[in-house]
Amino acid sequence: MTAPSLASILQQRRQHLAQLVDFPVLLWSGCALSRNFPANRFPFRASSHFLYFAGLSLKNSVIRLEGGKLELFYDEAPPESALWHGEMPARSDLARTIGADAAYPLADLAFHCKDAATIPVSQVQTQQFQILQRAIALEGIDAQLAQAIATLRLRHDAGALEQLRQAAAIAVEAHKIGMGMVSHAHTEAEVRGAIEGAIFARNMSCSYNSIVTVRGEVLHNERYDNLLQPGDLLLVDAGAETQMGWASDITRTFPIAGKFSATQREIYNLVLAAHDACVDRVSPGVEYSEIHHLAALVLAQGLVDLGILRGQADDLVERDAHALFFPHGIGHLLGLDVHDMEDLGDVAGYAPGRKRRDRFGWCYLRLDRPLQPGMLVTIEPGFYQVPGILQNPHWREKYQDCINWQQLERFGDVRGIRIEDDVLVTESGREVVSADLPNNADEIEQLVSANS
Amino acid sequence: MTAPSLASILQQRRQHLAQLVDFPVLLWSGCALSRNFPANRFPFRASSHFLYFAGLSLKNSVIRLEGGKLELFYDEAPPESALWHGEMPARSDLARTIGADAAYPLADLAFHCKDAATIPVSQVQTQQFQILQRAIALEGIDAQLAQAIATLRLRHDAGALEQLRQAAAIAVEAHKIGMGMVSHAHTEAEVRGAIEGAIFARNMSCSYNSIVTVRGEVLHNERYDNLLQPGDLLLVDAGAETQMGWASDITRTFPIAGKFSATQREIYNLVLAAHDACVDRVSPGVEYSEIHHLAALVLAQGLVDLGILRGQADDLVERDAHALFFPHGIGHLLGLDVHDMEDLGDVAGYAPGRKRRDRFGWCYLRLDRPLQPGMLVTIEPGFYQVPGILQNPHWREKYQDCINWQQLERFGDVRGIRIEDDVLVTESGREVVSADLPNNADEIEQLVSANS
Ligand SMILES: [Mn+2]
Ligand SMILES: [Mn+2]
Repeated sequence: MTAPSLASILQQRRQHLAQLVDFPVLLWSGCALSRNFPANRFPFRASSHFLYFAGLSLKNSVIRLEGGKLELFYDEAPPESALWHGEMPARSDLARTIGADAAYPLADLAFHCKDAATIPVSQVQTQQFQILQRAIALEGIDAQLAQAIATLRLRHDAGALEQLRQAAAIAVEAHKIGMGMVSHAHTEAEVRGAIEGAIFARNMSCSYNSIVTVRGEVLHNERYDNLLQPGDLLLVDAGAETQMGWASDITRTFPIAGKFSATQREIYNLVLAAHDACVDRVSPGVEYSEIHHLAALVLAQGLVDLGILRGQADDLVERDAHALFFPHGIGHLLGLDVHDMEDLGDVAGYAPGRKRRDRFGWCYLRLDRPLQPGMLVTIEPGFYQVPGILQNPHWREKYQDCINWQQLERFGDVRGIRIEDDVLVTESGREVVSADLPNNADEIEQLVSANS
Repeated sequence: MTAPSLASILQQRRQHLAQLVDFPVLLWSGCALSRNFPANRFPFRASSHFLYFAGLSLKNSVIRLEGGKLELFYDEAPPESALWHGEMPARSDLARTIGADAAYPLADLAFHCKDAATIPVSQVQTQQFQILQRAIALEGIDAQLAQAIATLRLRHDAGALEQLRQAAAIAVEAHKIGMGMVSHAHTEAEVRGAIEGAIFARNMSCSYNSIVTVRGEVLHNERYDNLLQPGDLLLVDAGAETQMGWASDITRTFPIAGKFSATQREIYNLVLAAHDACVDRVSPGVEYSEIHHLAALVLAQGLVDLGILRGQADDLVERDAHALFFPHGIGHLLGLDVHDMEDLGDVAGYAPGRKRRDRFGWCYLRLDRPLQPGMLVTIEPGFYQVPGILQNPHWREKYQDCINWQQLERFGDVRGIRIEDDVLVTESGREVVSADLPNNADEIEQLVSANS
């Protein structure tokens, strides 16, 4: 069996869309953004909704979908631009590659916009702000379109899965390179350079700004300023993105000197136990929020066993005490976006009628739906000692009865640990797409020590 | 003598500005731009004008300059954000670091905007478009401000030079790493990964999207899809940027197999001769357009000597025939931006009253001013066989008498060669800031062959 062509993958996607909406749809790819002046731009990244139905990363392009038909609106580069950018494919060649039924210059778009639904591209500053504030209100057919696209993109087809596996495979390679060189590195920046260099070397890009830090307790640390000290753990959260825009998202935490301390190993194994329990629970029909709850329970019980928390695990979780050390969600959807479809707010992440809970430990959960075959999710429990939480008088008072501060002090060399894998929901259960990257403490130590 | 502090460097800059303008000035840093959804952003890059006077890369910040005084408008992160981004410095600490006379929350900005001049940040799509079209018209005090800032930023102070030297040094290192690994690489992407990985490893970023290609004739090729073949030349145009935003911009072209062919070496040495002649001409008072003209003359004469062009070099240059093979300008300003201050159109690049010439071979010249001590410029002659030019019937007819097509065919293995260095204008002449990277053909061959 040969792999299906891009044109046939895309045809299937728009036929599925046609079963969900009965109005025309326009999707824009967007433009390259200026970095500091017009000619110096960030690498172009097309809108994910466009990529899903158009397959190719084309600048300044629009597709129109209706009744399973695809029309491409695309301006061929003027001849002068070949000097700077080389020969660009002709509109008709692009149309053939993606199986378009027709192709027009952009100027013709004006005649094809009527009554079409659309989704705003995520590029203009105010729109970003609106979405962050959850103030965006897609209405009418635009809202229906967003729901329809979320329905489609929730469950990955074969074409998507092939891309997602490639993205995971290259991220696994890059993480191994990072682990293999850390014993010779002196700075976070060196490890970041090795990992991202490896991703670029395979002609992929980074699906998000990598986190490579000895301060794993800063959850979205995007600086690489610190020196590596022998007793440190390094937290690496890095993913690759294929040229067609499909993402991976993997985290490992490992000892720079190749050997976990006793305390580091205890916490590491606890996080791994939560990770494994959660991965094992992934199955069609299971509520993702249950998996988050399971992670909280395993972590709470483990922290009780280590003498850090006091009480019954289920009581502690009921009181959100686990969130003192695990303040984020157990994971999220993964696809074209590393937080898939987050440009739509919670339209994709939350089942209709559901809303984020306001509670500490739950408000950052990005996915609350029953799992379905074809969904790809991350499982990423963690343990962090965040000063902003643990030194906060409000929390200290609220949870004074359930933390043994003296015992916690023993674990001072554990600032942040996270273990994150990409898990596909299958008909019969699950498949860990990033399984080739070891997460067992002994194997991690071996990978780090192999070249030292 | 100890290095001057950031605060004193910045103080000097704003005092100079105060000598040039008598109105208050507001400069915005800008915000991080969304890549595909609000939480997934491109690395933040502050406006260069802000960086010049504020020194630090602060998001969503504004400075007000008046009479040599500096006021900072900056919102401290809410306590919750420490969870994600770590502890951020307090406003008062930042103010002290940059030597601000006062610091306020952003909300206070409304009371300080009156009568202030400003420069638009280069981020909104329409603004970009306007600038590209040269339709932007800064008026009144905004136009005066742009002129004043251009005057200041044209000649680099000691603080700037220290940064620019660092940026050049790391780019030199990265280029050497690229040359050292190319004999083992199979793809352009692998070389790009090695070079950019090396830049990241030194905790710098890329000052622009690197060009790493065997198709050097595509001037702004930003793809890395090609396989490396033994007979190919690889053109690498890559620069580093310091954390404070200062750029380098260096190009080398080298044989993948470690040995130029006879024809490649002839053209390489011709481009190098043009490069060396132009570098030697850099001196205070010299018109940069004269240096461009010199490059054209040396290249034309060399192509006559090689039998590719026919006629007298000065006649050929008068007829723009050199531009058939050297269609771009000899270089540009370099500073915080790789094309420094290009966000202002030609305000900085062209002396008052001067305009770009419409002529083939001159319209892409980005700098037309007499050189002054403290200016940093690139010198980057090249030779390219661009199908869009050489196959263009218009040019073929216009220049039919001066090209020996049969002789040109002998040079089919030379698609594109460029040699680019960063040259500082000094009181007594010049200093090549990127001189540590060899450009002599023999040394280039040695660097490439050393590890094979
Ligand atoms: Mn994740
Ligand atoms: Mn340049």
